[in-house]
Amino acid sequence: MQKIRIKEILAGNTDEKSLSIGGWVKTHRQSKNVSFIELTDGSSIKGLQLVLDPNLESYVSIAEDITTGASIQVSGELQDSPAKGQAFELVVSEITLLGKANPETYPLQKKGHTLEFLREQLHLRPRSNTFGAVFRVRDRAAFALHTFFHERNFAWVHSPIITTSDGEGAGEMFQVTTLDLEKLSKKENISAIDYSQDFFKQPSFLTVTGQLQAEIFATSLTNVYTFGPTFRAENSNTTRHLAEFWMLEPEMAFCDLEGDMGLAEDFVKYILNDLLANCREDLEFFQKFYDEDKKLISTLESVASASFEVITYTEAISILEKSAIAFEFPVSWGIDLQTEHERYLTEVHVGGPVFVIDYPKDIKAFYMRMNDDEKTVAAMDLLVPRCGEIIGGSQREERYDVLQNKIRTMNLDEKEYEWYLDLRKYGTVPHAGFGLGFERLLMYVTGMQNVRDVIPCPRYAGSANF
Amino acid sequence: MQKIRIKEILAGNTDEKSLSIGGWVKTHRQSKNVSFIELTDGSSIKGLQLVLDPNLESYVSIAEDITTGASIQVSGELQDSPAKGQAFELVVSEITLLGKANPETYPLQKKGHTLEFLREQLHLRPRSNTFGAVFRVRDRAAFALHTFFHERNFAWVHSPIITTSDGEGAGEMFQVTTLDLEKLSKKENISAIDYSQDFFKQPSFLTVTGQLQAEIFATSLTNVYTFGPTFRAENSNTTRHLAEFWMLEPEMAFCDLEGDMGLAEDFVKYILNDLLANCREDLEFFQKFYDEDKKLISTLESVASASFEVITYTEAISILEKSAIAFEFPVSWGIDLQTEHERYLTEVHVGGPVFVIDYPKDIKAFYMRMNDDEKTVAAMDLLVPRCGEIIGGSQREERYDVLQNKIRTMNLDEKEYEWYLDLRKYGTVPHAGFGLGFERLLMYVTGMQNVRDVIPCPRYAGSANF
Repeated sequence: MQKIRIKEILAGNTDEKSLSIGGWVKTHRQSKNVSFIELTDGSSIKGLQLVLDPNLESYVSIAEDITTGASIQVSGELQDSPAKGQAFELVVSEITLLGKANPETYPLQKKGHTLEFLREQLHLRPRSNTFGAVFRVRDRAAFALHTFFHERNFAWVHSPIITTSDGEGAGEMFQVTTLDLEKLSKKENISAIDYSQDFFKQPSFLTVTGQLQAEIFATSLTNVYTFGPTFRAENSNTTRHLAEFWMLEPEMAFCDLEGDMGLAEDFVKYILNDLLANCREDLEFFQKFYDEDKKLISTLESVASASFEVITYTEAISILEKSAIAFEFPVSWGIDLQTEHERYLTEVHVGGPVFVIDYPKDIKAFYMRMNDDEKTVAAMDLLVPRCGEIIGGSQREERYDVLQNKIRTMNLDEKEYEWYLDLRKYGTVPHAGFGLGFERLLMYVTGMQNVRDVIPCPRYAGSANF
Repeated sequence: MQKIRIKEILAGNTDEKSLSIGGWVKTHRQSKNVSFIELTDGSSIKGLQLVLDPNLESYVSIAEDITTGASIQVSGELQDSPAKGQAFELVVSEITLLGKANPETYPLQKKGHTLEFLREQLHLRPRSNTFGAVFRVRDRAAFALHTFFHERNFAWVHSPIITTSDGEGAGEMFQVTTLDLEKLSKKENISAIDYSQDFFKQPSFLTVTGQLQAEIFATSLTNVYTFGPTFRAENSNTTRHLAEFWMLEPEMAFCDLEGDMGLAEDFVKYILNDLLANCREDLEFFQKFYDEDKKLISTLESVASASFEVITYTEAISILEKSAIAFEFPVSWGIDLQTEHERYLTEVHVGGPVFVIDYPKDIKAFYMRMNDDEKTVAAMDLLVPRCGEIIGGSQREERYDVLQNKIRTMNLDEKEYEWYLDLRKYGTVPHAGFGLGFERLLMYVTGMQNVRDVIPCPRYAGSANF
């Protein structure tokens, strides 16, 4: 196993000067007196410069196969580099070719590639600069997420993927089955499916949220979060939607909407600060190549130190109505805010992150806590510049009678929610939580414009390669 | 949000003596001069003792509703406790009842419950001592897992759940579909399903392994791991199988079988040491109530400091043949080792953890690296006492021609594995990895005997509640 990583070498974190390291060739420049190879092991956007004597015995015979994408193993001495932009370089005493990458056929040559092209090379794109950076940032953000919650004594709960309940009370779900569809289609006009033959003996689906199960654990362990894949079978071919994506859902007992917003604000700032500290070079790369305004880092820094404002939905509607902007979607009390409205509020009106709270009950889910006005619920959305909504949360209805009544009013199947009502029947407590789409957070911090470019294997209508 | 947790209070980690805290009642003892409530917030197996003056005004009116499972909020002064077994107690000055738990109907009364009974109360069982402990250990193990890999510069890769490839080249998979099954069954004798109408335009399934996708990332980022849900549609109603379970799969470039075993050994020891240090009271609870021999902790300690032995499969067969034990499954070279064989090797022959390596190629997956004898592959299983196999791994076949030949020999669809072969076509490197069933690890460390008791919402044939 490779223990020394190029990232550590470049940061000067290794005392050992005699090194042996494997990696992939980024570039290879040969001249009469000296050859240079830039080597990457995927640990950093910058590669390690290898310096070779063109007459080095182990090099001469393989020099022509040292092309972009080829894998090599080298030994040598680390020394201070005279070249600009790098502190160290490795003077190679031994080089071995592990695997060629035929320049005639290898799809990732040195020249830049469009994101569209790389999307068609899903299995190779992590080798490119852009996707190496994306997946390093994704990894770091996920680890920072766990660290944030564990520093605060939250337990990570693995909510189920396969479910028989429809968490949002709506939504298009994928069905999971072991029934033989071919056989099913060949039967003659049977009147109904025999689910006793299906694996779970009832229709079952991929989860759209882990929140309801998280509430089981918040009402026993107090502070918990889920972080895992969730699913939507929406046939929307956009740059913002995936059929499979990762969602964070913290849930806290003994917590109201204010505590919920406090956690959301702390969380966003923590992640931004962590990435600014630990993925600086990758963020600089995104700013340089994917951010027209070159303001990515300064925006993240300002959000990380901002005080998030709070306005009510009713105030927000009034602000939008007074704005004199001709929105595509007309504004009136009761509408669901569209991205154009959200962006106006956060970018123009506030000029920074803003929570919008107390939404009309009719546009929010059944489990949100009714406010005393009986028109609005204790919900909150966090809006950020460039992105709009990044977090949606609420205090949950903890009053048995009120929740039961809501379930009946909305014509939900009360029997199906019996277990959920039990959480209010026995030792009920005020509790609250929120949901954050992890890919949306990643788009926000990297500036990548297409959600398909921030997840390893994007799944969307018509596409589930591998 | 509740920031002070009972675990921290009991550990003496709070300087503040005037506290306000919410939780659930475990027990309530009233007497003429003083009342006691044991309060839990799910953060530790031990509750916080509350001491009350029976005449306290806020207490008198609610005293009869302070029953097991009721939720309360209390304020008071923390003081040293005169009672045995606890360092601190809270003298209550104010108490509020948040939610009753009617003793006539609340399923979790003070008396002990069978695991079978609690399994039918999935939504309430985390409130019991046993399942509180299980899910604290599960959380801690998961966090330790991430910490272990990040300390070693591994990136966490979120491999996809929905897949169109069958990773193991075998195995019963769940199909994922948006086709309307009712409609499908009512059509008259159609000859084949029209997958152009399905969401992904082709048959798609729930993943059985993230390994193949992890290889994409190992051959670009060097050291990676997946940790997420995987699925088997096996209709086996046992105490060891689930339809949905979490799996860890590290994958390392520039790594051979020896490096792979080294990582597996380091990993197991790290997790055990972490849990012994951070979940001591929960492990003591398991030892006391679920371990007949009362050796759980000493076994974990000895494994955490053992040097893991290595034997070849061929040696293992010879050992088993010489053992004079009448195994249920007869032993001969070429068989797949059964749990009885594995347990003999680790418990009787070695008396500790042992890697068995170099298995016959015919009983292992297509991607494992062929050894020079052309009869065995560079595979390894880690066997531990009480459990048998806990980890299975291998060095992967990195030679394009050898892998292509294997795919053809096994009649796999070469077209489907084209992307996987590409990883060997361009810059191929030696690489290796392993898989560990997270629930099996949890059964091992807690001593719980049924896999359904170490996962929040167990899914198995006929069961996918919520």
